[in-house]
Amino acid sequence: MNIKAEWIAVDWGTSRLRVWAMQGHKVLAQAQSDKGMGHVNKGAFEAAFLELVEDWLGAAPIDVIACGMVGARQGWAEAPYATVPATPLPEMPVRVPGTDARMRVYIVPGLRQLKPADVMRGEETQIAGFLAQNPNWDGVICLPGTHTKWAQISANEVVSYQTFMTGEMYALLSSQSVLRHSIGQGWDEAAFQDSLAETLSRPESLAARLFGLRAKDLLEGQAGDTARARLSGLLIGAELAASRPYWLGQRVAVIGADTIAKVYASALQPQGAPVTILDCNEMTIAGLIAARKHVRAMA
Amino acid sequence: MNIKAEWIAVDWGTSRLRVWAMQGHKVLAQAQSDKGMGHVNKGAFEAAFLELVEDWLGAAPIDVIACGMVGARQGWAEAPYATVPATPLPEMPVRVPGTDARMRVYIVPGLRQLKPADVMRGEETQIAGFLAQNPNWDGVICLPGTHTKWAQISANEVVSYQTFMTGEMYALLSSQSVLRHSIGQGWDEAAFQDSLAETLSRPESLAARLFGLRAKDLLEGQAGDTARARLSGLLIGAELAASRPYWLGQRVAVIGADTIAKVYASALQPQGAPVTILDCNEMTIAGLIAARKHVRAMA
Repeated sequence: MNIKAEWIAVDWGTSRLRVWAMQGHKVLAQAQSDKGMGHVNKGAFEAAFLELVEDWLGAAPIDVIACGMVGARQGWAEAPYATVPATPLPEMPVRVPGTDARMRVYIVPGLRQLKPADVMRGEETQIAGFLAQNPNWDGVICLPGTHTKWAQISANEVVSYQTFMTGEMYALLSSQSVLRHSIGQGWDEAAFQDSLAETLSRPESLAARLFGLRAKDLLEGQAGDTARARLSGLLIGAELAASRPYWLGQRVAVIGADTIAKVYASALQPQGAPVTILDCNEMTIAGLIAARKHVRAMA
Repeated sequence: MNIKAEWIAVDWGTSRLRVWAMQGHKVLAQAQSDKGMGHVNKGAFEAAFLELVEDWLGAAPIDVIACGMVGARQGWAEAPYATVPATPLPEMPVRVPGTDARMRVYIVPGLRQLKPADVMRGEETQIAGFLAQNPNWDGVICLPGTHTKWAQISANEVVSYQTFMTGEMYALLSSQSVLRHSIGQGWDEAAFQDSLAETLSRPESLAARLFGLRAKDLLEGQAGDTARARLSGLLIGAELAASRPYWLGQRVAVIGADTIAKVYASALQPQGAPVTILDCNEMTIAGLIAARKHVRAMA
């Protein structure tokens, strides 16, 4: 298949690189690799990128619009943070100098918050995509993942946000800690809701209940499905207890990959929060389309 | 040096094997290796043990008294749990069958709690050692480590106890998570106390504050000493919030390795809990001496 892209959309996170060959707003083709920013040495970014997109390039130079950790200091080129409160794409994407002549590469700046200190790279683009499709939407956006973000949105601006390490804690506890012997692959929704309710109402029980997942397995042979759902419930319940000032009485848009977005929605719905789920790749592409408009407007 | 042991005391945990050549209550020599129970296959326990103690053995068979994970199902021989409430050594240590004829190996049973489900192997021996030296002591014993235990002691019995994964969480977060880039080696006591007070009074802030350690480093260049003390403070504060029913208004004996025992003492003292620190190896040896009395009484 001989696809030539009009431009290329890029989501370059810590662990994965995702690229889309674009024609206007239309996705012509997609590709991905495990050459996330965390696995690529300074100086090797262009080669890792060309591996995926070489065939999409023609003679005339095209725009490449990237977001994510690729804009960190250790990335392809640093794209300094903008500071909230701010629209999610308040500044011109940064041009990467000295690239292959067949492309003009731009990286979207991340957002920082001074107090409490916080940083994001990539999620601002998903928020921009959501707001491009839902202008003047006020409420709270939850972006679950390795580092889940909660963002308060008003008047098309990110007013404030907060990051939780829930996803990373879940991964470490379920695969590296003593709990790994007791965590299965399935799911027990009742156990999830029960554990969630416990840490949501008494967040100190997170510390108290974790080892119990192992002890219950040793003494009673608790099913791995149940232990997995309980671990997830305990962690997300503690996150919801801490993020209550964000979601209480607000409408919530959950932007995430299918499975984890549904888990967060099923955690929020019993709390009375009206929830909409959106796919994170679609929001990323919509945000990169919006970022390209900035670039074109300046060209 | 040609030391012959009258008997051998053994602390065989998940990650390390520690042995002491004993003459009555006196330690003649000690040795250790990294052949913890988690690194030794079924069938290889005797060889791993003889590697350390071969020279201490004579022609006449001697007692070997062991405690710890070596008594788990995957250990040298299973020593079934006793159930609390119980004295810390309520049952006869289990004889390991078919050992080298120069030794009679006994393993101390662990303690389990049915509700809430909990298990310990090794700490019961430290508690027994403490009670042998402090008979009729009522109060709370805190045993900080990878899996910190809090035990309520009354009338020489373990009435109830609870395990916290604080040590393992600290190890995973400081060496495996994104925080590893920001955690140093030193210590900032004021930052420790500040973070401890925060999660002790508002335990939900544990989830909220962890990523801030990374963000503060990226945005303000927070010192690694401060980040390390803050991580420790946030985790121990959350543990103290959850273990409050144990320590509030009680005298507390902290049994642990030097550094971590002092950290727990400095966390507890501002809460008004009178704290005594005891060395965990001394308590283990005292407990194994007590366990050997059971064995001798039955011989």
